[in-house]
Amino acid sequence: MRLSELGELGLLAELERRGLAQHIGHDAAALADGVVVTQDALVEGVHFRLDWISWRDLGWRAAAVNLSDLAASGADPEGLIVTLAAPGDTNVEDVLELYAGMAETGVAVLGGDTTRAEQLLLSVSAVGRSTRVPGRAGAKPGDTLVVTGPLGAAGAAFRRQAFVRPPLRLGEGKELARHAHALLDLSDGLAVDAAHVAARSGCRLAIELERVPIAVGAELDDVGFGEDYELLAAVAGPTRFTEIGRCEEGEGVALTLDGEPYELGGWEHFR
Amino acid sequence: MRLSELGELGLLAELERRGLAQHIGHDAAALADGVVVTQDALVEGVHFRLDWISWRDLGWRAAAVNLSDLAASGADPEGLIVTLAAPGDTNVEDVLELYAGMAETGVAVLGGDTTRAEQLLLSVSAVGRSTRVPGRAGAKPGDTLVVTGPLGAAGAAFRRQAFVRPPLRLGEGKELARHAHALLDLSDGLAVDAAHVAARSGCRLAIELERVPIAVGAELDDVGFGEDYELLAAVAGPTRFTEIGRCEEGEGVALTLDGEPYELGGWEHFR
Repeated sequence: MRLSELGELGLLAELERRGLAQHIGHDAAALADGVVVTQDALVEGVHFRLDWISWRDLGWRAAAVNLSDLAASGADPEGLIVTLAAPGDTNVEDVLELYAGMAETGVAVLGGDTTRAEQLLLSVSAVGRSTRVPGRAGAKPGDTLVVTGPLGAAGAAFRRQAFVRPPLRLGEGKELARHAHALLDLSDGLAVDAAHVAARSGCRLAIELERVPIAVGAELDDVGFGEDYELLAAVAGPTRFTEIGRCEEGEGVALTLDGEPYELGGWEHFR
Repeated sequence: MRLSELGELGLLAELERRGLAQHIGHDAAALADGVVVTQDALVEGVHFRLDWISWRDLGWRAAAVNLSDLAASGADPEGLIVTLAAPGDTNVEDVLELYAGMAETGVAVLGGDTTRAEQLLLSVSAVGRSTRVPGRAGAKPGDTLVVTGPLGAAGAAFRRQAFVRPPLRLGEGKELARHAHALLDLSDGLAVDAAHVAARSGCRLAIELERVPIAVGAELDDVGFGEDYELLAAVAGPTRFTEIGRCEEGEGVALTLDGEPYELGGWEHFR
Protein backbone atom coordinates (compact mmCIF):
# COMPACT_ATOMS: atom_id res chain seq x y z
CA MET A 1 0.00 0.00 0.00
CA ARG A 2 1.16 3.56 -0.72
CA LEU A 3 1.27 6.39 1.80
CA SER A 4 -1.15 8.33 -0.37
CA GLU A 5 -3.74 5.54 0.08
CA LEU A 6 -3.22 5.05 3.81
CA GLY A 7 -3.09 8.77 4.59
CA GLU A 8 -1.31 10.53 7.44
CA LEU A 9 -3.79 9.55 10.15
CA GLY A 10 -3.72 5.92 8.99
CA LEU A 11 0.08 5.85 9.14
CA LEU A 12 0.11 7.31 12.64
CA ALA A 13 -2.45 4.75 13.84
CA GLU A 14 -0.40 1.90 12.35
CA LEU A 15 2.83 3.14 13.97
CA GLU A 16 1.14 3.35 17.37
CA ARG A 17 -0.52 -0.06 16.98
CA ARG A 18 2.91 -1.64 16.35
CA GLY A 19 4.48 0.20 19.28
CA LEU A 20 6.90 2.01 16.95
CA ALA A 21 5.91 5.53 17.95
CA GLN A 22 3.74 7.40 20.41
CA HIS A 23 1.96 10.69 19.91
CA ILE A 24 3.25 11.30 16.38
CA GLY A 25 0.96 13.93 14.97
CA HIS A 26 0.45 15.20 18.50
CA ASP A 27 3.48 17.30 17.53
CA ALA A 28 4.56 17.85 21.14
CA ALA A 29 6.29 15.28 23.35
CA ALA A 30 5.98 15.83 27.10
CA LEU A 31 8.91 14.42 29.07
CA ALA A 32 9.61 14.13 32.78
CA ASP A 33 10.05 17.36 34.78
CA GLY A 34 7.67 19.24 32.48
CA VAL A 35 10.01 19.42 29.48
CA VAL A 36 8.03 19.71 26.23
CA VAL A 37 9.62 19.22 22.80
CA THR A 38 7.86 19.89 19.49
CA GLN A 39 8.88 19.35 15.88
CA ASP A 40 7.41 20.54 12.61
CA ALA A 41 8.80 20.55 9.12
CA LEU A 42 8.04 23.05 6.35
CA VAL A 43 8.78 21.79 2.83
CA GLU A 44 8.91 24.03 -0.25
CA GLY A 45 6.11 23.21 -2.65
CA VAL A 46 4.15 21.39 0.07
CA HIS A 47 3.84 23.86 2.96
CA PHE A 48 4.94 27.06 1.26
CA ARG A 49 5.87 28.62 -2.06
CA LEU A 50 8.57 31.26 -2.14
CA ASP A 51 6.54 33.37 -4.57
CA TRP A 52 3.77 33.58 -1.94
CA ILE A 53 5.78 34.26 1.20
CA SER A 54 8.85 36.35 2.08
CA TRP A 55 11.91 34.69 3.59
CA ARG A 56 11.37 36.66 6.79
CA ASP A 57 7.73 35.56 7.08
CA LEU A 58 8.82 31.99 6.38
CA GLY A 59 11.22 32.21 9.33
CA TRP A 60 8.46 33.54 11.59
CA ARG A 61 6.16 30.79 10.38
CA ALA A 62 8.65 27.96 10.97
CA ALA A 63 9.19 29.18 14.52
CA ALA A 64 5.53 30.06 15.17
CA VAL A 65 4.06 26.69 14.18
CA ASN A 66 6.33 25.05 16.77
CA LEU A 67 5.68 27.69 19.40
CA SER A 68 1.98 27.04 18.76
CA ASP A 69 2.54 23.43 19.81
CA LEU A 70 4.22 24.71 22.97
CA ALA A 71 1.25 27.04 23.54
CA ALA A 72 -1.09 24.06 23.24
CA SER A 73 1.03 22.37 25.91
CA GLY A 74 0.83 25.37 28.24
CA ALA A 75 4.61 25.68 28.01
CA ASP A 76 7.05 28.56 28.40
CA PRO A 77 9.48 28.39 25.44
CA GLU A 78 13.21 28.00 26.12
CA GLY A 79 14.63 27.81 22.62
CA LEU A 80 14.48 26.57 19.04
CA ILE A 81 16.61 23.97 17.27
CA VAL A 82 16.62 24.50 13.50
CA THR A 83 17.62 22.25 10.61
CA LEU A 84 17.86 24.06 7.28
CA ALA A 85 18.16 22.04 4.07
CA ALA A 86 18.66 24.30 1.06
CA PRO A 87 19.96 24.19 -2.51
CA GLY A 88 23.54 25.39 -2.93
CA ASP A 89 22.45 28.30 -5.14
CA THR A 90 20.28 29.82 -2.38
CA ASN A 91 21.17 33.45 -1.60
CA VAL A 92 22.90 33.90 1.75
CA GLU A 93 20.99 37.15 2.37
CA ASP A 94 17.71 35.24 2.02
CA VAL A 95 18.86 32.68 4.58
CA LEU A 96 19.84 35.45 7.00
CA GLU A 97 16.36 36.99 6.52
CA LEU A 98 14.86 33.59 7.34
CA TYR A 99 16.71 33.40 10.66
CA ALA A 100 15.83 37.05 11.36
CA GLY A 101 12.15 36.11 11.00
CA MET A 102 12.60 33.34 13.55
CA ALA A 103 14.34 35.77 15.92
CA GLU A 104 11.29 38.08 15.68
CA THR A 105 9.30 35.59 17.75
CA GLY A 106 11.58 36.46 20.68
CA VAL A 107 12.70 32.84 21.13
CA ALA A 108 16.38 32.13 20.48
CA VAL A 109 17.83 29.56 18.10
CA LEU A 110 19.99 27.40 20.38
CA GLY A 111 21.32 24.84 17.92
CA GLY A 112 20.65 22.85 14.80
CA ASP A 113 22.09 21.74 11.52
CA THR A 114 22.42 22.96 7.94
CA THR A 115 22.61 20.78 4.88
CA ARG A 116 22.17 20.76 1.12
CA ALA A 117 18.97 19.57 -0.61
CA GLU A 118 17.16 20.03 -3.90
CA GLN A 119 14.11 21.44 -2.11
CA LEU A 120 14.19 24.07 0.61
CA LEU A 121 13.20 22.45 3.88
CA LEU A 122 13.09 23.74 7.42
CA SER A 123 12.69 21.42 10.35
CA VAL A 124 12.30 23.20 13.66
CA SER A 125 12.02 21.89 17.19
CA ALA A 126 10.94 24.04 20.08
CA VAL A 127 11.76 23.21 23.68
CA GLY A 128 9.84 24.52 26.65
CA ARG A 129 8.55 23.71 30.11
CA SER A 130 5.03 23.27 31.33
CA THR A 131 3.51 22.47 34.70
CA ARG A 132 0.45 20.82 33.08
CA VAL A 133 -0.05 19.44 29.54
CA PRO A 134 -3.78 18.74 28.99
CA GLY A 135 -3.27 16.82 25.72
CA ARG A 136 -6.15 15.66 23.54
CA ALA A 137 -7.50 12.71 25.47
CA GLY A 138 -9.23 14.35 28.43
CA ALA A 139 -12.35 16.03 27.01
CA LYS A 140 -15.51 15.00 28.92
CA PRO A 141 -19.21 15.10 28.07
CA GLY A 142 -20.55 18.39 29.42
CA ASP A 143 -17.36 20.34 28.65
CA THR A 144 -17.60 23.63 26.83
CA LEU A 145 -15.49 24.07 23.67
CA VAL A 146 -13.69 27.42 23.30
CA VAL A 147 -11.32 29.00 20.75
CA THR A 148 -8.77 31.75 21.45
CA GLY A 149 -9.39 33.86 18.34
CA PRO A 150 -10.94 34.18 14.88
CA LEU A 151 -10.47 31.40 12.33
CA GLY A 152 -10.20 31.32 8.54
CA ALA A 153 -7.48 33.93 7.95
CA ALA A 154 -5.01 31.36 6.63
CA GLY A 155 -7.54 29.78 4.28
CA ALA A 156 -8.60 33.17 2.93
CA ALA A 157 -4.96 34.16 2.38
CA PHE A 158 -4.33 30.87 0.57
CA ARG A 159 -7.15 31.71 -1.86
CA ARG A 160 -5.30 34.96 -2.57
CA GLN A 161 -2.04 32.98 -3.00
CA ALA A 162 -0.54 34.49 0.14
CA PHE A 163 0.31 33.52 3.69
CA VAL A 164 -0.45 35.28 6.94
CA ARG A 165 1.73 35.18 10.03
CA PRO A 166 0.42 32.59 12.48
CA PRO A 167 -0.36 34.13 15.87
CA LEU A 168 1.56 33.25 19.04
CA ARG A 169 -0.89 32.18 21.76
CA LEU A 170 1.64 31.34 24.47
CA GLY A 171 -0.09 33.34 27.21
CA GLU A 172 -3.52 31.98 26.31
CA GLY A 173 -2.08 28.46 26.26
CA LYS A 174 -0.66 28.75 29.76
CA GLU A 175 -3.96 30.18 31.00
CA LEU A 176 -6.04 27.37 29.47
CA ALA A 177 -3.58 24.59 30.34
CA ARG A 178 -4.13 25.21 34.06
CA HIS A 179 -7.61 23.67 33.99
CA ALA A 180 -8.58 22.56 30.42
CA HIS A 181 -9.50 18.89 29.95
CA ALA A 182 -8.15 18.94 26.37
CA LEU A 183 -6.13 21.57 24.48
CA LEU A 184 -4.64 21.67 20.97
CA ASP A 185 -3.77 24.18 18.26
CA LEU A 186 -5.86 24.41 15.11
CA SER A 187 -3.26 23.50 12.50
CA ASP A 188 -5.25 20.97 10.44
CA GLY A 189 -8.57 22.83 10.41
CA LEU A 190 -11.45 22.89 12.86
CA ALA A 191 -13.13 19.72 11.55
CA VAL A 192 -9.98 17.56 11.53
CA ASP A 193 -8.58 18.87 14.81
CA ALA A 194 -11.92 18.44 16.58
CA ALA A 195 -11.94 14.86 15.26
CA HIS A 196 -8.54 14.30 16.89
CA VAL A 197 -9.97 15.37 20.27
CA ALA A 198 -13.15 13.29 19.81
CA ALA A 199 -11.16 10.16 18.88
CA ARG A 200 -8.63 10.52 21.70
CA SER A 201 -11.15 11.53 24.34
CA GLY A 202 -13.86 9.02 23.39
CA CYS A 203 -16.64 11.58 23.14
CA ARG A 204 -18.57 13.62 20.57
CA LEU A 205 -17.77 17.24 19.78
CA ALA A 206 -20.83 19.29 18.78
CA ILE A 207 -19.77 22.57 17.18
CA GLU A 208 -22.20 25.35 16.27
CA LEU A 209 -20.50 27.07 13.36
CA GLU A 210 -22.59 30.26 13.75
CA ARG A 211 -20.72 30.83 17.03
CA VAL A 212 -17.24 30.45 15.50
CA PRO A 213 -15.47 33.83 15.17
CA ILE A 214 -14.48 34.35 11.51
CA ALA A 215 -11.41 36.40 10.59
CA VAL A 216 -11.84 39.62 8.59
CA GLY A 217 -11.91 38.76 4.88
CA ALA A 218 -12.55 35.08 5.52
CA GLU A 219 -15.61 32.93 4.79
CA LEU A 220 -17.00 30.09 6.87
CA ASP A 221 -15.42 27.41 4.66
CA ASP A 222 -11.98 28.91 5.26
CA VAL A 223 -12.32 27.62 8.84
CA GLY A 224 -11.79 24.08 7.53
CA PHE A 225 -8.52 24.95 5.81
CA GLY A 226 -6.49 25.02 9.00
CA GLU A 227 -3.16 26.74 9.72
CA ASP A 228 -4.94 29.31 11.88
CA TYR A 229 -2.99 28.25 14.99
CA GLU A 230 -5.61 29.49 17.42
CA LEU A 231 -6.14 27.12 20.34
CA LEU A 232 -9.18 24.87 20.84
CA ALA A 233 -9.92 23.78 24.41
CA ALA A 234 -12.48 21.61 26.19
CA VAL A 235 -13.14 23.16 29.60
CA ALA A 236 -15.50 22.47 32.49
CA GLY A 237 -16.05 26.03 33.68
CA PRO A 238 -16.47 29.48 32.11
CA THR A 239 -13.47 31.20 30.44
CA ARG A 240 -12.85 34.57 28.78
CA PHE A 241 -12.67 32.83 25.37
CA THR A 242 -15.34 32.34 22.70
CA GLU A 243 -17.60 29.30 23.23
CA ILE A 244 -18.29 27.41 20.00
CA GLY A 245 -19.90 24.19 21.21
CA ARG A 246 -19.78 21.37 23.71
CA CYS A 247 -18.60 17.84 24.30
CA GLU A 248 -21.28 15.12 24.45
CA GLU A 249 -21.60 11.36 24.92
CA GLY A 250 -20.89 9.60 21.62
CA GLU A 251 -18.19 9.84 19.00
CA GLY A 252 -17.04 11.98 16.08
CA VAL A 253 -17.72 15.61 15.30
CA ALA A 254 -21.12 17.16 14.62
CA LEU A 255 -20.87 20.48 12.79
CA THR A 256 -24.07 22.50 12.50
CA LEU A 257 -24.93 25.90 11.06
CA ASP A 258 -28.09 27.35 12.58
CA GLY A 259 -29.16 23.87 13.61
CA GLU A 260 -28.59 22.18 10.23
CA PRO A 261 -25.67 19.76 9.53
CA TYR A 262 -22.82 21.46 7.70
CA GLU A 263 -19.71 19.90 6.13
CA LEU A 264 -16.40 21.77 6.37
CA GLY A 265 -13.39 20.76 4.31
CA GLY A 266 -10.20 19.64 6.06
CA TRP A 267 -6.58 18.90 5.33
CA GLU A 268 -4.93 15.53 5.05
CA HIS A 269 -1.23 15.09 4.19
CA PHE A 270 -0.04 12.48 1.62
CA ARG A 271 -3.35 12.92 -0.30
CA MET B 1 26.50 35.40 -2.46
CA ARG B 2 25.31 31.82 -2.78
CA LEU B 3 25.33 29.25 0.01
CA SER B 4 27.63 27.10 -2.12
CA GLU B 5 30.24 29.90 -2.10
CA LEU B 6 29.94 30.76 1.60
CA GLY B 7 29.86 27.13 2.75
CA GLU B 8 28.24 25.66 5.84
CA LEU B 9 30.87 26.88 8.31
CA GLY B 10 30.74 30.38 6.81
CA LEU B 11 26.96 30.50 7.18
CA LEU B 12 27.13 29.39 10.80
CA ALA B 13 29.75 32.03 11.60
CA GLU B 14 27.63 34.75 9.95
CA LEU B 15 24.49 33.66 11.87
CA GLU B 16 26.37 33.78 15.18
CA ARG B 17 27.99 37.14 14.34
CA ARG B 18 24.53 38.65 13.77
CA GLY B 19 23.15 37.11 16.96
CA LEU B 20 20.60 35.11 14.95
CA ALA B 21 21.65 31.68 16.23
CA GLN B 22 23.96 30.04 18.74
CA HIS B 23 25.71 26.72 18.46
CA ILE B 24 24.23 25.78 15.08
CA GLY B 25 26.43 23.02 13.81
CA HIS B 26 27.16 22.08 17.40
CA ASP B 27 24.07 19.91 16.80
CA ALA B 28 23.21 19.73 20.52
CA ALA B 29 21.63 22.50 22.56
CA ALA B 30 22.16 22.32 26.32
CA LEU B 31 19.34 23.92 28.32
CA ALA B 32 18.86 24.56 32.01
CA ASP B 33 18.53 21.54 34.31
CA GLY B 34 20.78 19.45 32.08
CA VAL B 35 18.26 18.98 29.26
CA VAL B 36 20.05 18.38 25.94
CA VAL B 37 18.26 18.54 22.58
CA THR B 38 19.83 17.55 19.26
CA GLN B 39 18.60 17.75 15.68
CA ASP B 40 19.89 16.23 12.46
CA ALA B 41 18.30 15.88 9.06
CA LEU B 42 18.90 13.13 6.50
CA VAL B 43 17.95 14.04 2.93
CA GLU B 44 17.65 11.51 0.12
CA GLY B 45 20.31 12.10 -2.52
CA VAL B 46 22.41 14.16 -0.10
CA HIS B 47 22.90 11.96 2.98
CA PHE B 48 21.70 8.63 1.66
CA ARG B 49 20.60 6.75 -1.41
CA LEU B 50 17.89 4.13 -1.08
CA ASP B 51 19.78 1.77 -3.42
CA TRP B 52 22.70 1.81 -0.93
CA ILE B 53 20.87 1.45 2.35
CA SER B 54 17.88 -0.52 3.60
CA TRP B 55 14.90 1.28 5.11
CA ARG B 56 15.63 -0.37 8.46
CA ASP B 57 19.28 0.73 8.44
CA LEU B 58 18.14 4.23 7.45
CA GLY B 59 15.92 4.31 10.54
CA TRP B 60 18.80 3.18 12.75
CA ARG B 61 21.02 5.79 11.15
CA ALA B 62 18.56 8.68 11.61
CA ALA B 63 18.24 7.82 15.29
CA ALA B 64 21.92 7.00 15.81
CA VAL B 65 23.34 10.24 14.41
CA ASN B 66 21.21 12.13 16.95
CA LEU B 67 22.02 9.77 19.80
CA SER B 68 25.67 10.32 18.90
CA ASP B 69 25.17 14.03 19.61
CA LEU B 70 23.67 13.07 22.98
CA ALA B 71 26.68 10.80 23.60
CA ALA B 72 29.00 13.72 22.86
CA SER B 73 27.03 15.67 25.47
CA GLY B 74 27.36 12.91 28.06
CA ALA B 75 23.58 12.58 28.10
CA ASP B 76 21.17 9.77 28.91
CA PRO B 77 18.58 9.67 26.09
CA GLU B 78 14.90 10.14 26.95
CA GLY B 79 13.28 9.99 23.52
CA LEU B 80 13.20 10.88 19.84
CA ILE B 81 10.99 13.31 17.95
CA VAL B 82 10.75 12.41 14.26
CA THR B 83 9.58 14.36 11.23
CA LEU B 84 9.14 12.24 8.11
CA ALA B 85 8.66 13.93 4.74
CA ALA B 86 7.99 11.41 1.99
CA PRO B 87 6.47 11.18 -1.50
CA GLY B 88 2.87 9.96 -1.60
CA ASP B 89 3.86 6.83 -3.57
CA THR B 90 6.18 5.59 -0.80
CA ASN B 91 5.37 2.05 0.37
CA VAL B 92 3.82 1.93 3.83
CA GLU B 93 5.78 -1.25 4.67
CA ASP B 94 9.03 0.61 3.94
CA VAL B 95 8.02 3.40 6.30
CA LEU B 96 7.20 0.87 9.03
CA GLU B 97 10.65 -0.70 8.51
CA LEU B 98 12.18 2.76 8.91
CA TYR B 99 10.52 3.26 12.29
CA ALA B 100 11.44 -0.30 13.29
CA GLY B 101 15.09 0.59 12.63
CA MET B 102 14.77 3.59 14.92
CA ALA B 103 13.19 1.42 17.62
CA GLU B 104 16.22 -0.93 17.43
CA THR B 105 18.33 1.76 19.12
CA GLY B 106 16.23 1.20 22.24
CA VAL B 107 15.13 4.83 22.41
CA ALA B 108 11.41 5.48 21.91
CA VAL B 109 9.82 7.82 19.37
CA LEU B 110 7.80 10.19 21.56
CA GLY B 111 6.34 12.51 18.95
CA GLY B 112 6.79 14.16 15.61
CA ASP B 113 5.16 14.97 12.35
CA THR B 114 4.64 13.43 8.92
CA THR B 115 4.26 15.31 5.68
CA ARG B 116 4.49 14.95 1.91
CA ALA B 117 7.58 15.96 -0.09
CA GLU B 118 9.20 15.18 -3.45
CA GLN B 119 12.35 13.92 -1.69
CA LEU B 120 12.44 11.58 1.27
CA LEU B 121 13.60 13.51 4.30
CA LEU B 122 13.91 12.56 7.94
CA SER B 123 14.48 15.14 10.61
CA VAL B 124 15.07 13.70 14.04
CA SER B 125 15.56 15.34 17.40
CA ALA B 126 16.81 13.48 20.44
CA VAL B 127 16.19 14.67 23.96
CA GLY B 128 18.28 13.62 26.94
CA ARG B 129 19.77 14.78 30.21
CA SER B 130 23.35 15.32 31.18
CA THR B 131 25.05 16.42 34.37
CA ARG B 132 27.99 17.90 32.43
CA VAL B 133 28.32 18.94 28.75
CA PRO B 134 32.01 19.56 27.93
CA GLY B 135 31.30 21.16 24.52
CA ARG B 136 34.04 22.10 22.06
CA ALA B 137 35.50 25.21 23.63
CA GLY B 138 37.41 23.85 26.62
CA ALA B 139 40.45 22.02 25.18
CA LYS B 140 43.69 23.24 26.81
CA PRO B 141 47.35 23.03 25.77
CA GLY B 142 48.77 19.90 27.33
CA ASP B 143 45.54 17.90 26.94
CA THR B 144 45.68 14.43 25.44
CA LEU B 145 43.38 13.69 22.45
CA VAL B 146 41.56 10.34 22.53
CA VAL B 147 39.07 8.52 20.28
CA THR B 148 36.58 5.87 21.41
CA GLY B 149 37.03 3.46 18.48
CA PRO B 150 38.35 2.81 14.97
CA LEU B 151 37.73 5.33 12.19
CA GLY B 152 37.24 5.03 8.44
CA ALA B 153 34.48 2.40 8.27
CA ALA B 154 31.94 4.85 6.86
CA GLY B 155 34.33 6.17 4.22
CA ALA B 156 35.31 2.65 3.15
CA ALA B 157 31.64 1.63 2.91
CA PHE B 158 30.92 4.74 0.84
CA ARG B 159 33.59 3.67 -1.67
CA ARG B 160 31.71 0.35 -1.97
CA GLN B 161 28.43 2.30 -2.40
CA ALA B 162 27.11 1.10 0.95
CA PHE B 163 26.47 2.39 4.45
CA VAL B 164 27.44 0.98 7.81
CA ARG B 165 25.43 1.38 10.99
CA PRO B 166 26.87 4.19 13.09
CA PRO B 167 27.85 3.00 16.57
CA LEU B 168 26.11 4.17 19.75
CA ARG B 169 28.72 5.49 22.20
CA LEU B 170 26.36 6.61 24.96
CA GLY B 171 28.24 4.87 27.79
CA GLU B 172 31.61 6.12 26.57
CA GLY B 173 30.17 9.63 26.24
CA LYS B 174 28.94 9.69 29.84
CA GLU B 175 32.31 8.37 31.01
CA LEU B 176 34.30 11.01 29.10
CA ALA B 177 31.89 13.87 29.84
CA ARG B 178 32.66 13.60 33.56
CA HIS B 179 36.13 15.11 33.14
CA ALA B 180 36.89 15.87 29.43
CA HIS B 181 37.76 19.49 28.54
CA ALA B 182 36.21 19.08 25.08
CA LEU B 183 34.08 16.31 23.56
CA LEU B 184 32.40 15.89 20.18
CA ASP B 185 31.37 13.13 17.79
CA LEU B 186 33.28 12.57 14.54
CA SER B 187 30.52 13.23 12.05
CA ASP B 188 32.38 15.55 9.62
CA GLY B 189 35.69 13.67 9.59
CA LEU B 190 38.72 13.84 11.86
CA ALA B 191 40.31 16.86 10.14
CA VAL B 192 37.17 19.01 10.09
CA ASP B 193 35.96 18.05 13.57
CA ALA B 194 39.41 18.61 15.08
CA ALA B 195 39.35 22.06 13.42
CA HIS B 196 36.03 22.78 15.21
CA VAL B 197 37.67 22.05 18.56
CA ALA B 198 40.81 24.06 17.72
CA ALA B 199 38.78 27.10 16.61
CA ARG B 200 36.41 27.03 19.61
CA SER B 201 39.09 26.25 22.17
CA GLY B 202 41.73 28.64 20.84
CA CYS B 203 44.50 26.07 20.65
CA ARG B 204 46.27 23.81 18.18
CA LEU B 205 45.44 20.12 17.80
CA ALA B 206 48.42 17.96 16.82
CA ILE B 207 47.27 14.55 15.61
CA GLU B 208 49.66 11.68 14.84
CA LEU B 209 47.80 9.69 12.21
CA GLU B 210 49.90 6.55 12.77
CA ARG B 211 48.23 6.31 16.21
CA VAL B 212 44.66 6.56 14.86
CA PRO B 213 42.89 3.17 14.96
CA ILE B 214 41.69 2.30 11.44
CA ALA B 215 38.55 0.19 10.90
CA VAL B 216 38.88 -3.20 9.21
CA GLY B 217 38.74 -2.73 5.43
CA ALA B 218 39.41 1.00 5.68
CA GLU B 219 42.40 3.05 4.57
CA LEU B 220 43.92 6.08 6.26
CA ASP B 221 42.22 8.55 3.91
CA ASP B 222 38.80 7.12 4.84
CA VAL B 223 39.35 8.74 8.25
CA GLY B 224 38.76 12.13 6.64
CA PHE B 225 35.38 11.12 5.22
CA GLY B 226 33.52 11.36 8.51
CA GLU B 227 30.26 9.73 9.58
CA ASP B 228 32.19 7.38 11.88
CA TYR B 229 30.41 8.75 14.98
CA GLU B 230 33.18 7.74 17.35
CA LEU B 231 33.87 10.38 20.00
CA LEU B 232 36.91 12.66 20.09
CA ALA B 233 37.87 14.08 23.50
CA ALA B 234 40.53 16.39 24.92
CA VAL B 235 41.38 15.19 28.41
CA ALA B 236 43.92 16.15 31.07
CA GLY B 237 44.55 12.71 32.57
CA PRO B 238 44.87 9.14 31.33
CA THR B 239 41.79 7.28 29.99
CA ARG B 240 41.07 3.76 28.72
CA PHE B 241 40.68 5.15 25.17
CA THR B 242 43.19 5.38 22.31
CA GLU B 243 45.48 8.44 22.42
CA ILE B 244 45.99 10.01 18.98
CA GLY B 245 47.65 13.33 19.77
CA ARG B 246 47.69 16.37 22.00
CA CYS B 247 46.52 19.93 22.31
CA GLU B 248 49.21 22.65 22.05
CA GLU B 249 49.55 26.43 22.13
CA GLY B 250 48.65 27.87 18.71
CA GLU B 251 45.77 27.40 16.29
CA GLY B 252 44.48 25.01 13.66
CA VAL B 253 45.12 21.31 13.19
CA ALA B 254 48.46 19.66 12.47
CA LEU B 255 48.11 16.20 10.98
CA THR B 256 51.28 14.15 10.70
CA LEU B 257 52.07 10.62 9.56
CA ASP B 258 55.32 9.32 11.03
CA GLY B 259 56.45 12.88 11.66
CA GLU B 260 55.66 14.23 8.16
CA PRO B 261 52.72 16.58 7.41
CA TYR B 262 49.75 14.72 5.91
CA GLU B 263 46.56 16.13 4.40
CA LEU B 264 43.25 14.33 5.01
CA GLY B 265 40.14 15.16 3.04
CA GLY B 266 37.04 16.47 4.84
CA TRP B 267 33.38 17.10 4.29
CA GLU B 268 31.70 20.43 3.75
CA HIS B 269 27.98 20.81 3.09
CA PHE B 270 26.62 23.16 0.37
CA ARG B 271 29.77 22.51 -1.72
